[in-house]
Amino acid sequence: MSDSLPGAADLYVFDRLEIARRATADAGLDALLISPGADLRYLTGYQAHPMERLTCLVVPAADEPFLVVPALEKAAAQASPVSGLGIEITGYAETDNAYELIARRLPVNTRLFAVDNHMWAEKLLSLEAALPGAQATLAGDLLSSLRMRKSAAEVAALRRAGAAIDEVHGRIGEWLRPGRTEREVARDIAAAIIDAGHATVDFVIVGSGPNGASPHHEVSDRVIESGDPVVVDIGGTLPEGYCSDSTRTYAVGEPPAAFRELYEVLLRAQTAQTEAIRPGITAEELDAVGRDLITEAGYGEHFIHRTGHGIGLETHEEPYIVAGSGRPLEPGMAFSVEPGIYLPGSFGARIEDIAVCTPDGGERLNLTGRDLVVLPG
Amino acid sequence: MSDSLPGAADLYVFDRLEIARRATADAGLDALLISPGADLRYLTGYQAHPMERLTCLVVPAADEPFLVVPALEKAAAQASPVSGLGIEITGYAETDNAYELIARRLPVNTRLFAVDNHMWAEKLLSLEAALPGAQATLAGDLLSSLRMRKSAAEVAALRRAGAAIDEVHGRIGEWLRPGRTEREVARDIAAAIIDAGHATVDFVIVGSGPNGASPHHEVSDRVIESGDPVVVDIGGTLPEGYCSDSTRTYAVGEPPAAFRELYEVLLRAQTAQTEAIRPGITAEELDAVGRDLITEAGYGEHFIHRTGHGIGLETHEEPYIVAGSGRPLEPGMAFSVEPGIYLPGSFGARIEDIAVCTPDGGERLNLTGRDLVVLPG
Repeated sequence: MSDSLPGAADLYVFDRLEIARRATADAGLDALLISPGADLRYLTGYQAHPMERLTCLVVPAADEPFLVVPALEKAAAQASPVSGLGIEITGYAETDNAYELIARRLPVNTRLFAVDNHMWAEKLLSLEAALPGAQATLAGDLLSSLRMRKSAAEVAALRRAGAAIDEVHGRIGEWLRPGRTEREVARDIAAAIIDAGHATVDFVIVGSGPNGASPHHEVSDRVIESGDPVVVDIGGTLPEGYCSDSTRTYAVGEPPAAFRELYEVLLRAQTAQTEAIRPGITAEELDAVGRDLITEAGYGEHFIHRTGHGIGLETHEEPYIVAGSGRPLEPGMAFSVEPGIYLPGSFGARIEDIAVCTPDGGERLNLTGRDLVVLPG
Repeated sequence: MSDSLPGAADLYVFDRLEIARRATADAGLDALLISPGADLRYLTGYQAHPMERLTCLVVPAADEPFLVVPALEKAAAQASPVSGLGIEITGYAETDNAYELIARRLPVNTRLFAVDNHMWAEKLLSLEAALPGAQATLAGDLLSSLRMRKSAAEVAALRRAGAAIDEVHGRIGEWLRPGRTEREVARDIAAAIIDAGHATVDFVIVGSGPNGASPHHEVSDRVIESGDPVVVDIGGTLPEGYCSDSTRTYAVGEPPAAFRELYEVLLRAQTAQTEAIRPGITAEELDAVGRDLITEAGYGEHFIHRTGHGIGLETHEEPYIVAGSGRPLEPGMAFSVEPGIYLPGSFGARIEDIAVCTPDGGERLNLTGRDLVVLPG
């Protein structure tokens, strides 16, 4: 399957950096300044954490890129894939000003620089202070246009992430039962997310009964009762950096008839959406495929969020599957399809798969069954 | 012990918000704008994650504070401690512009606003665009002056965090032995961090042999060998939000004599530093207490980082124990004391305790023994 994707000859990290440099020049920017996070990992393979000391990849539009790191991170940077890129790694001492170091290295006529969207305000304001004649803008559009079109190797990594989180959903019956709290269940799930091969647990949502009606409820000490619908939305990050994210809604014992009705509508909507994926359909059209079905069934006001978000080195990235986005899907785009219906005070349901747009349609990367699973209650 | 701390009558979150408002006014700021993270949790008790949709606490200098959240987060915000503060929670729809919503609510003559230091660049630049007549600055100094003086309740929480991570260090012998990789050991440690009561695993550094000479090495597939010194630096966050962080350096089998020499120097330095803590000593003086001992012993060039960092709702926060900081310690300040000696290509060692400054001196919150533990090798 992945061989049929465009860009099947995967981009090497080195290619990405050169592509980003050209895009920087084409956008009329003088430099791209990237702090630790998914953008840095995408461009260099270096997995660093944002911290008080600045780490920054500098990509001048018309010069060689270089990486600025605190002296005590230099060994770690050299041991990372950065060393294979042949770019300079500049360490600075505890008492040096890293911002002025960068400013001195940039051309004197630097007017416009772009920073990664998640750069901390303290870093951005310090860069602005060190570059008084220059203006800051966001690198997000430039970088997301690269990152959202996944290569075959990236899709393969997302497929492995999908299989890992599917393994956890396949075991939910071991932990989810009446008399346990959401927190207890979440703890077992977290351990299983690691067991399944993730490097980190990114989120574990266990929303039982009325808590399932809050889309971003995480966990509580609520004791699960017989008959509860329970929303289980879980994800982690593989050691290679790619993320998983999948939701299933379970019933612990026979749920209320009103829940079964709601669930059937949701299942029809989510199924229709995953089947509607194809190159050229726009994000808002895909959103509408599910929203229209849910609205016709009378639940429109209870589907209170967008259909989905892109996924890759971050759980939430472009493309967003949302009303108002006329972005046409392209092969290689990977995103969640996660409609939900939420009845405040009663219960909620959400079904979520990660899917990738292929030349022929869509491929679901989560393959757990979508019919309602009723666990012993 | 905690009863003897100043501010033993703990601040309620409501007090913090009012104190922050007054500090905002006193600093000549028109408003404080706080996005998800430790500052938001400190001021409101609301634990939210930064994401593409803006969540922002707005504290006008001369008006009531309010919280702006995406509509789908409103239920979660209402279920959080925010609801006890009696402040307005404003939800906005997917298609609303949250930045303009905030700009409309601020006084028309808003000239200067402060943002949390970790606000994402995309949020900051959008706020600046929505407030074209106003300038942005950082709220860091204002908020860290509050956050770094811990109340008795916060010290108690840090003490619980210290006990939890001590429990993990007490079990290292179960996992650390020759023939296993750093990654395998780290995985067992991560599970134990959760078992000990942390909500999240924040970092697990297992630096064996030469990897221990890189202070921020995390883990690798290196197989631990008999005779290896191994730096184990671990931490997590309790459900109540406070962080743990403690390092011990172990030997797996009898280590080289040169390592034992180095370790004894380090132990003297770290012990002297924890004993030197008292109100009035400055951060740089405390740093020098250990650095001078290490330098006299001939290892000065191999202690390549500051002595420590503050800790609380974040693992790294003010006060930093670093050369160049004339900040006098005050009762309630909590920070790491973690000198290290690193011999590139050979091995390294670090000993780290969290300590809190009390009226009478210092209290160590990590109580694992500091003598070298030689595990079976």
